[in-house]
Amino acid sequence: MNTRKVLKIVSGGLIAVATLIEVRSILQPNHHPVVKIPTHNQQQRSVFTWAKTFFERFPKLTKVQADSTFPRDDIKPWDWNWDNKEPQLDSDNRLHVFSWGDKKGSVKGTGSRHLLFIRHGQYHYADSDKDCHLTQLGREQLNFTGARLKQLNLPYSILYYSTMTRAVESTEEIMRHLPDVPVEPTDSLCEGAPFPLEPPLENYKPTEDELDNDGSRIEKAFRTYVHRPSPNQSKDSYEIFVCHANVIRYFVCRALQIPPEAWIRFSLDHGSITWIVIRPNGRVALRWLGNSGHMPPEKISIS
Amino acid sequence: MNTRKVLKIVSGGLIAVATLIEVRSILQPNHHPVVKIPTHNQQQRSVFTWAKTFFERFPKLTKVQADSTFPRDDIKPWDWNWDNKEPQLDSDNRLHVFSWGDKKGSVKGTGSRHLLFIRHGQYHYADSDKDCHLTQLGREQLNFTGARLKQLNLPYSILYYSTMTRAVESTEEIMRHLPDVPVEPTDSLCEGAPFPLEPPLENYKPTEDELDNDGSRIEKAFRTYVHRPSPNQSKDSYEIFVCHANVIRYFVCRALQIPPEAWIRFSLDHGSITWIVIRPNGRVALRWLGNSGHMPPEKISIS
Repeated sequence: MNTRKVLKIVSGGLIAVATLIEVRSILQPNHHPVVKIPTHNQQQRSVFTWAKTFFERFPKLTKVQADSTFPRDDIKPWDWNWDNKEPQLDSDNRLHVFSWGDKKGSVKGTGSRHLLFIRHGQYHYADSDKDCHLTQLGREQLNFTGARLKQLNLPYSILYYSTMTRAVESTEEIMRHLPDVPVEPTDSLCEGAPFPLEPPLENYKPTEDELDNDGSRIEKAFRTYVHRPSPNQSKDSYEIFVCHANVIRYFVCRALQIPPEAWIRFSLDHGSITWIVIRPNGRVALRWLGNSGHMPPEKISIS
Repeated sequence: MNTRKVLKIVSGGLIAVATLIEVRSILQPNHHPVVKIPTHNQQQRSVFTWAKTFFERFPKLTKVQADSTFPRDDIKPWDWNWDNKEPQLDSDNRLHVFSWGDKKGSVKGTGSRHLLFIRHGQYHYADSDKDCHLTQLGREQLNFTGARLKQLNLPYSILYYSTMTRAVESTEEIMRHLPDVPVEPTDSLCEGAPFPLEPPLENYKPTEDELDNDGSRIEKAFRTYVHRPSPNQSKDSYEIFVCHANVIRYFVCRALQIPPEAWIRFSLDHGSITWIVIRPNGRVALRWLGNSGHMPPEKISIS
């Protein structure tokens, strides 16, 4: 018997053992700490159910094992200068120079910006915006949201609101809870078609004109409102934006540097809170998306 | 005067008029419906503040106008077969054939899968997992989450939980509210390093080995649990997963088909609910991320 044959037998044996171990590990119940969960629960999954689940999963598992890792060779680096406010080295390669308006200096901020985006409430659809009033439910939803914002007790510096009727009426409800927060209306946050959507929808196909006009307006609004704090900002700041689902979803994609066409893959409950945090160094985190947990379940709606 | 000169004068005039209109539109207060918001609010922004804001914004606005639209020439199409369960045409080009385990048929499902991912509660960090118990606050957080899941009153079919101590203890708290929901432990949902993170973090640098081992395990878990409903599923189904921040954030990226390295750009409150919906045709929506609105503000924590 030559070396080649020995190797063949040994490797064959190893493959057989590995297969046995794999099959055993699938057949065995998972090892886990003792769970103090009502025991009748564990029993609800009968041997039959277990066997069924096992055989259903088996082809999947074997398939996945041949291709178990998602490719990680094309990672796009985070653009630290995404908001055009990344500090640059000066000509002596020493001081940080901030391209912040006309201001230049070496001060580094220590406060973060917290942007809280509120979707308006449920409304009666009409051809003209002035007739698109909130429903009774829509009023109630924003009443809950106003109460929650008050309860969160954050030092809000301003509330910006879209000038569309449903956003104005939503703002009215919120302001009953936050009478001392300054407000500012802006057309730039009105609803529109921010970007082509992928995957497309059968019943929503924005025209090229809409994409051009709304898209450039909403992108301009993004650049106006979503950026890192000023280098002079030492404390965390909290701003509220009462606006619309498409605007909020597009802002989320742009702020997180994920493909903007993905905005349609997010959905937002009426009156929900979406919270974006921007650190002084330009790092961004999405902390809440569509947070509507402050509403009783029967008051939650999407459309 | 030749034609060239006339054209120059006319176009010069047009540019001047356009500039005037633009400046006017910026100077004018926004047109918006009458807002019934406490009037002292509007007055809080004095003429001085307004002028300051205006002049601060002006350089930004002019800058943005030259480059106002985000590029939309490299949109990556949604992969309808992301979960390897997209129906295929048969050899006669007529019937839909589903590659669903061994099952093949032309039945099209009408029910969606709702996956509710719960992050465990706050815990005491220790070197050994068995010593990583929930804090008193962590127990309270999951008690609120269990109560909320009960209150949502959805027909949960199963609760899967990670076998790490903090997830097991979190599951115990939830199960006090949902005693009739079947539970199933799984090692595959344990915490780990699912994928390289971008932007990187100073204090969390997973090794290549961790990325390989955790990454392939968590990717396998994704393929096991996150996929469209079976073509036989006629009603919406609701499944609960009690696990960990990295796992949930990675699943969100993979399900939404956004770059997996972006998982670090999301952050999740303890005990929060993240809700992914998968339609029968494979369309995916993220409805909630980090929904912790069911907790009193003083009970919310991240780390």
